[in-house]
Amino acid sequence: TTQYRITLLPGDGIGPEIMLVAVDVLKVVGKLLDIRFEFQEALIGGAAIDATGEPLPPTTLEMCKDSDAVLLAAIGGYKWDNLPRHLRPETGLLGLRAGLSLFANLRPAKILPQLIDASSLKPEIVAGVDIMVVRELTGGVYFGQPKGIFTTETGEKCGVNTMAYTAAEIDRIGRVAFETAQKRQGRLCSVDKANVLEVSQLWRDRITQLAAEYPDVELSHMYVDNAAMQLVRYPKQFDTIVTGNLFGDILSDAAAMLTGSIGMLPSASLGASGPGVFEPVHGSAPDIAGQDKANPLAQVLSAAMMLRYALNQPVAADQIENAVLQVLDRGDRTGDIMSPGMNLLGCHAMGEALIQV
Amino acid sequence: TTQYRITLLPGDGIGPEIMLVAVDVLKVVGKLLDIRFEFQEALIGGAAIDATGEPLPPTTLEMCKDSDAVLLAAIGGYKWDNLPRHLRPETGLLGLRAGLSLFANLRPAKILPQLIDASSLKPEIVAGVDIMVVRELTGGVYFGQPKGIFTTETGEKCGVNTMAYTAAEIDRIGRVAFETAQKRQGRLCSVDKANVLEVSQLWRDRITQLAAEYPDVELSHMYVDNAAMQLVRYPKQFDTIVTGNLFGDILSDAAAMLTGSIGMLPSASLGASGPGVFEPVHGSAPDIAGQDKANPLAQVLSAAMMLRYALNQPVAADQIENAVLQVLDRGDRTGDIMSPGMNLLGCHAMGEALIQV
Ligand SMILES: CC(C)[C@H](C(=O)O)[C@@H](O)C(=O)O
Ligand SMILES: CC(C)[C@H](C(=O)O)[C@@H](O)C(=O)O
Repeated sequence: TTQYRITLLPGDGIGPEIMLVAVDVLKVVGKLLDIRFEFQEALIGGAAIDATGEPLPPTTLEMCKDSDAVLLAAIGGYKWDNLPRHLRPETGLLGLRAGLSLFANLRPAKILPQLIDASSLKPEIVAGVDIMVVRELTGGVYFGQPKGIFTTETGEKCGVNTMAYTAAEIDRIGRVAFETAQKRQGRLCSVDKANVLEVSQLWRDRITQLAAEYPDVELSHMYVDNAAMQLVRYPKQFDTIVTGNLFGDILSDAAAMLTGSIGMLPSASLGASGPGVFEPVHGSAPDIAGQDKANPLAQVLSAAMMLRYALNQPVAADQIENAVLQVLDRGDRTGDIMSPGMNLLGCHAMGEALIQV
Repeated sequence: TTQYRITLLPGDGIGPEIMLVAVDVLKVVGKLLDIRFEFQEALIGGAAIDATGEPLPPTTLEMCKDSDAVLLAAIGGYKWDNLPRHLRPETGLLGLRAGLSLFANLRPAKILPQLIDASSLKPEIVAGVDIMVVRELTGGVYFGQPKGIFTTETGEKCGVNTMAYTAAEIDRIGRVAFETAQKRQGRLCSVDKANVLEVSQLWRDRITQLAAEYPDVELSHMYVDNAAMQLVRYPKQFDTIVTGNLFGDILSDAAAMLTGSIGMLPSASLGASGPGVFEPVHGSAPDIAGQDKANPLAQVLSAAMMLRYALNQPVAADQIENAVLQVLDRGDRTGDIMSPGMNLLGCHAMGEALIQV
């Protein structure tokens, strides 16, 4: 029996309910394939603020470090939106990323044929869309120094953040992206704003240099404004996209929304070594929290990504992904992806449906 | 007779051909309404680099300052893409914006019923979309100091840009945005990344404070990643959007592409005083330059915006906009907006069609 220690971070809003489903599914798959999971739960985000006064208690980070992988649900909510910055749920998430050195964020945006009507785009435009956004996650304007709200000599307030990347930071995420593209269709599009920003000029230079080491990958470059347009215009042109922290935040959300069903999309955040964090792309949806209405499938697919990327258990990952496709095939839907003639299920019932296939 | 001095900056690629059409249209409208235009032409972008060695010759900036408004076509092309930064066409454009203090960039994204099929989104999603993006244009990470590619103590290269806004810069663009919203549906959405960036926190604070002076405008705030999603999901929710330079670059292009026909979209860049610059949203399209294939309508509509915003000639602006709608109604199309059963026209012929209605 292989045994893994998994830290669960249910977080806020719908987090706890969708996490329950993912854990149930993992247990069933584990039993079938003789994999043992030791689950340990920790606090993060608003839940941690309420219980301990800080969004990422040191014990949470310790527990995460001391595990094989971390499964995170969602953080945040109106309740904590007006706290000072260091006490906000998002700060806990950024602290987790920095604390575990999770520099590579993989965000797939894949359209499922069963849900093609959920997209706001025409079916012929989105059919077959399968994009992987590789986003740098521990650098750029999210973490650059100096930052703050300063008072100038003339007594005026000035808000400042610094968008910076070192060559080594760019190379590190670049390698992950080239390797990701190699396992996909072999096309990598690097997105920057090199016509205006020096930080993007260095980005483009380094990525271009790296390309020599990956002759089997076809590299192209695109400005971020054009990338936002091209995602809307003709998303099938993209295979793998690599970009910095802020551009990746914006473009991966736009790409996700092309599918029309962000309740279906998982993500992985990986470091050079140590445990990765696996979480849905969607947020904590405080408006429907606790009502058994949430779609648990992105959380379940995040558990599958964890099995594939962190635990090297592709068979288990396949089983989970197939179960999701099967329940969709037979017409089971949560409210967010409901369409006429389908069976409307709650969060818990969707979990039961998955387990029974 | 009212007389205006207009500086024409045809620039690169398709710029000269579409500019010719706009000038012809202005002349005809001027004759009808007894408005005299004195046109003076100047160099910018690649054309200026080739002729003078710099993308914004001092005489060009002087001529622009010494005019009532500036009509710009498009700049840039592959040919100048690998020059050092200070010699690139884009640098000329940034210099023009800074030189004329054009802090407010208005970018409408309005869907025309005649062209609804050009959109990659479903017709029911885009029908009636009418968004105005108010983008700050002379601050933020485009101009912040320090910037450059530096060598760190350990000998490593580091690319740096600074995203900064002062309270006064935010207030200035905020007022333009509130006033714009007042003339539209009265709804203003301010887009930032205040959950991560201090510069956005100040942005949000100032815009919130300004709202007290505009009780007739309904203000909301949205994070930039969510805004990128919401533009794709349900664009009709937006009326006026206000945001910083970089976010505005990305979101205005995404919004423009929702219409499916960026060959139709004009824009205005305005300062506190002095001449504004009016230009199409699309680029210089070097691949079709000189082939009489370009769509001149965004350039023509930019001339209409100039009449409306800079010259206070709303009747003339209406006439031009109506002429554009009429040629579309009768089925005239350039290649970029062509669909079955319509009449395919070249750039010049489209100009003739406009003049004849
Ligand atoms: C919550 C926020 C800090 C976060 C980010 O901006 O990275 C989120 O938008 C995401 O993409 O995971
Ligand atoms: C050409 C470039 C410098 C410019 C910008 O980024 O502002 C363009 O994308 C625009 O939006 O006008």
